[in-house]
Amino acid sequence: MAQAFADRLIQRIGALGHPLCVGLDPQLERIPAPFRRGTMQAADPETAEVVADFCLAVLARVVDRVAVVKPQSAFFEALGWPGVRALGKVLETARGQGLLVILDAKRGDIGSSAAGYAAAYLGEAGPLAADALTVSPWLGFDSCEPFLDAAARAGGGLFVLARTSNPGAQDFQELESGGLRLYEHVAEGLAERAKRLLGPETGWSGLGLVAGATWPDEAKRLRERAPSNLFLVPGYGAQGASAADAVAGFVRGPGGHLEGGVVSSSRAILFPDAPSDTAESWEKAVDKALQRAITELGSVVA
Amino acid sequence: MAQAFADRLIQRIGALGHPLCVGLDPQLERIPAPFRRGTMQAADPETAEVVADFCLAVLARVVDRVAVVKPQSAFFEALGWPGVRALGKVLETARGQGLLVILDAKRGDIGSSAAGYAAAYLGEAGPLAADALTVSPWLGFDSCEPFLDAAARAGGGLFVLARTSNPGAQDFQELESGGLRLYEHVAEGLAERAKRLLGPETGWSGLGLVAGATWPDEAKRLRERAPSNLFLVPGYGAQGASAADAVAGFVRGPGGHLEGGVVSSSRAILFPDAPSDTAESWEKAVDKALQRAITELGSVVA
Repeated sequence: MAQAFADRLIQRIGALGHPLCVGLDPQLERIPAPFRRGTMQAADPETAEVVADFCLAVLARVVDRVAVVKPQSAFFEALGWPGVRALGKVLETARGQGLLVILDAKRGDIGSSAAGYAAAYLGEAGPLAADALTVSPWLGFDSCEPFLDAAARAGGGLFVLARTSNPGAQDFQELESGGLRLYEHVAEGLAERAKRLLGPETGWSGLGLVAGATWPDEAKRLRERAPSNLFLVPGYGAQGASAADAVAGFVRGPGGHLEGGVVSSSRAILFPDAPSDTAESWEKAVDKALQRAITELGSVVA
Repeated sequence: MAQAFADRLIQRIGALGHPLCVGLDPQLERIPAPFRRGTMQAADPETAEVVADFCLAVLARVVDRVAVVKPQSAFFEALGWPGVRALGKVLETARGQGLLVILDAKRGDIGSSAAGYAAAYLGEAGPLAADALTVSPWLGFDSCEPFLDAAARAGGGLFVLARTSNPGAQDFQELESGGLRLYEHVAEGLAERAKRLLGPETGWSGLGLVAGATWPDEAKRLRERAPSNLFLVPGYGAQGASAADAVAGFVRGPGGHLEGGVVSSSRAILFPDAPSDTAESWEKAVDKALQRAITELGSVVA
């Protein structure tokens, strides 16, 4: 039996002193010059190799400096099956290097279809296995069951979309029903099921939720409803939320630091606002952006 | 500019006299004996070829008899990139045969990630392009925009998850807020945006919604809120809803028939409850199950 995802994650974060998760969002048009070759069109199989090489170069910068990375499946799927093959290579490389991987695929379905997704992305022999997966709650808690089962078997985790960082999150997630907002209903359901993916060493549950960094008040409400569920916090960095906002749902751990989740930054690190016309200048710019995020997040959790 | 998806769909359904959509759910363990070869394990690349061959054999039975097929992406993704390559082959073959294709992938994301999915599955040059895609509304209407844009450019359609056929649909979709159930909020938002994918010849909108066949009363409420949006109705056949239940949200068209969507059946047709130990017996059983569904649905819309 593998060590529980929540324990692996919280322990590595504790050792590193910061909760930064680097998002792997290989947007074709933003991939810097030193990596570009061929047509850079989605239909060209070489493009998927460019994307894989770029992601592997990012992994080389972040390995041993962050606990976890988060590939965004959409950018790989946009390249068709060669892109999915590239995703597999990125997943395998990252995990082989000792990084934890949250695959951001926002899947959601029922019955055997949900089981199919769970087998692919969370199965111990899954062809695209990650340590954790983002899933949508819209179809109801029964739709989460196959994902929960697969995660429990593999020592994996789930992050269920509760309160996302985009303005449209207000259309449904923010609606009130029976005295609770929808995202609070999600949090309550996850709290009830937290034991299914409990990390016995840290007390945190790998049945996590997504709580956008742009909504610190909502993050606090989510934490009240879901005291032991890990948070995945997107929107820090490029989406404009501060480091302090991003950890609004964290709580003091036994070592005195704020803990309880990961804070994701993608484009501010992958595509730093600095010259990247050579591999060396891009590496330097990434290292600097990475260090800035690590320092910021490290200081707000200290 | 391609003919609008809604017009293509409604016109073909009108010509055939029934709204049956055959779901392509190639569950490995149910693929009949004549198709099985190799290890039939997800990790074996030959398995993806078995799945493609099985789906192509289904297409050969249904072509010219139904307007539309609906592959379930999960069963292909479960096989890793070779499965996604097989999905591409199925999509290309079906569309080449003149079938419309709704890819059931239930995607949902924001910004450039949503645009990535839209480019893959709805783009005119998308590597896995279908005529229409199922999407989740949970992240809000802004998350639908990139899908809407891509569908409008390609003459494609969308089916947004409103009221699904599973029991857990009650956890969120059925909650009431401000006097409306959540699935009604979804329907209202889609009705407001219906013009974006309007079929000028039939008056139907390709900005459709998913309304499970197991909930005919809810389908009627959805139709009131979304008078011109197409419905995709799963749950007929194996999930136990009757043909009459399945068309509860349809309305009389100019020809006197009930119209306004498609009714999907997957396993009752692909895996009929009859001996399938030879290719011929499986074909005969599929033809019979297909004819039964066509006759039933044809009679309730007449």
